Amino acid sequence: MKIINVAKLSRYCKMVKYLEQEEAINIDLELFNEYQYSVNQLMELAGLSCAIAIAKTYPKEKFLDKSILVCCGPGNNGGDGLVSARHLKLFDYKPIIYYPQRTDKLLYNDLTHQCSSMSIPIIQCLPEKSTIDTQFGLIVDALFGFSFKPPVRETFVPIVKLMKNTEVPIASIDIPSGWHVEHGEPEEGGIKPELLISLTAPKKCAQKFKGKYHYLGGRFIPPKLEEKYGLNLPKYPGTECCVLLN
Amino acid sequence: MKIINVAKLSRYCKMVKYLEQEEAINIDLELFNEYQYSVNQLMELAGLSCAIAIAKTYPKEKFLDKSILVCCGPGNNGGDGLVSARHLKLFDYKPIIYYPQRTDKLLYNDLTHQCSSMSIPIIQCLPEKSTIDTQFGLIVDALFGFSFKPPVRETFVPIVKLMKNTEVPIASIDIPSGWHVEHGEPEEGGIKPELLISLTAPKKCAQKFKGKYHYLGGRFIPPKLEEKYGLNLPKYPGTECCVLLN
Repeated sequence: MKIINVAKLSRYCKMVKYLEQEEAINIDLELFNEYQYSVNQLMELAGLSCAIAIAKTYPKEKFLDKSILVCCGPGNNGGDGLVSARHLKLFDYKPIIYYPQRTDKLLYNDLTHQCSSMSIPIIQCLPEKSTIDTQFGLIVDALFGFSFKPPVRETFVPIVKLMKNTEVPIASIDIPSGWHVEHGEPEEGGIKPELLISLTAPKKCAQKFKGKYHYLGGRFIPPKLEEKYGLNLPKYPGTECCVLLN
Repeated sequence: MKIINVAKLSRYCKMVKYLEQEEAINIDLELFNEYQYSVNQLMELAGLSCAIAIAKTYPKEKFLDKSILVCCGPGNNGGDGLVSARHLKLFDYKPIIYYPQRTDKLLYNDLTHQCSSMSIPIIQCLPEKSTIDTQFGLIVDALFGFSFKPPVRETFVPIVKLMKNTEVPIASIDIPSGWHVEHGEPEEGGIKPELLISLTAPKKCAQKFKGKYHYLGGRFIPPKLEEKYGLNLPKYPGTECCVLLN
């Protein structure tokens, strides 16, 4: 008779928790205020895990001479994008950063400088759709994260529209931009990422994700915090910093 | 006739550069001042790469119930140790931090708090040799880094002496503690780590390393900086954050 390990079984049976917006904000605050992590410390781990999930999903041999357009918003989601662009460059990809609205804070200035001093082009003008369709093999959507409230601000309307209309695959960091953090894709139709990388824990909108690949990254949650919020995070394999959820 | 790719060949033939102390210090300064990295950002990547190199070398199944003693010094090498202890805990190892002389700076206070709030014990008294020999499967030596100048300060003499006399394998971060950064093991005999994890680029003393495993970690050097110092870093495989040198 085979003995079933109930604890193990229950671990696998339990579903990972999908967070409401307020829970996600509270966990973030707790990481900084109670656990005393610094933003750039966690952003480095989060951005690295995004770059690795992207590299696992889109091996660089498939890109030939094509670039990756990394679209960065003004907040922390954009910061994750800047970090992932830098790691993608170290992995021999060709990232180009579209950063239409920079935030004049030390953290973002440093992250931007780190990218430009690695010879990653940073552009403020959105390329034409035809240019994107032919010269880019992937769009990384790092515009808005879990604190997003609709509507999309004017500066970002053209890039969101372009992402809705292009055939180039999209990798969204944490939240597909323009989607409601809890309800998902807007009624009028939104972007349809092929890859979603949830950070820390997936947000409710990820339940509506119909793309091919859903990764979880940001392996830094202290077990007590995981327990407090009942996150039921999946087990990361070995020393990996991201895990495939679907 | 097989055509030889000369560029490729030359890459493999070129030896990785072993740095003098002053070069290591200058590269560090340049990373912070010219490239605008923050200490905790690079320390996070360095410490993570150490934890991964340790996990690759010493799979956790071999530890059974044994713990890892992570010995942290007062400076950045100790900080790398604190970060690697935290990641080792996330990889399901049982680290215990020996931290006899804490530095009262925000960075170190935060790193220490992050460890203790992950339930990693932090001790100030050195356990007896017999306790270490029986209860620990590995010692991580994160006492002194590339700015070390002999002699070893009084506080750290007992732990260095213990590491010289124990059979428990030692993993040294960047510099085997007590070794001269350029000349290597002191004449009177020094610690003999089984694993050395060089960070950024190996220092001259690493040429004298006779242990089994030599890893390079800290995959964050901008190509221009690598070129300026002629580092000839080996190619990291895929998205790995450390690479075996021997």
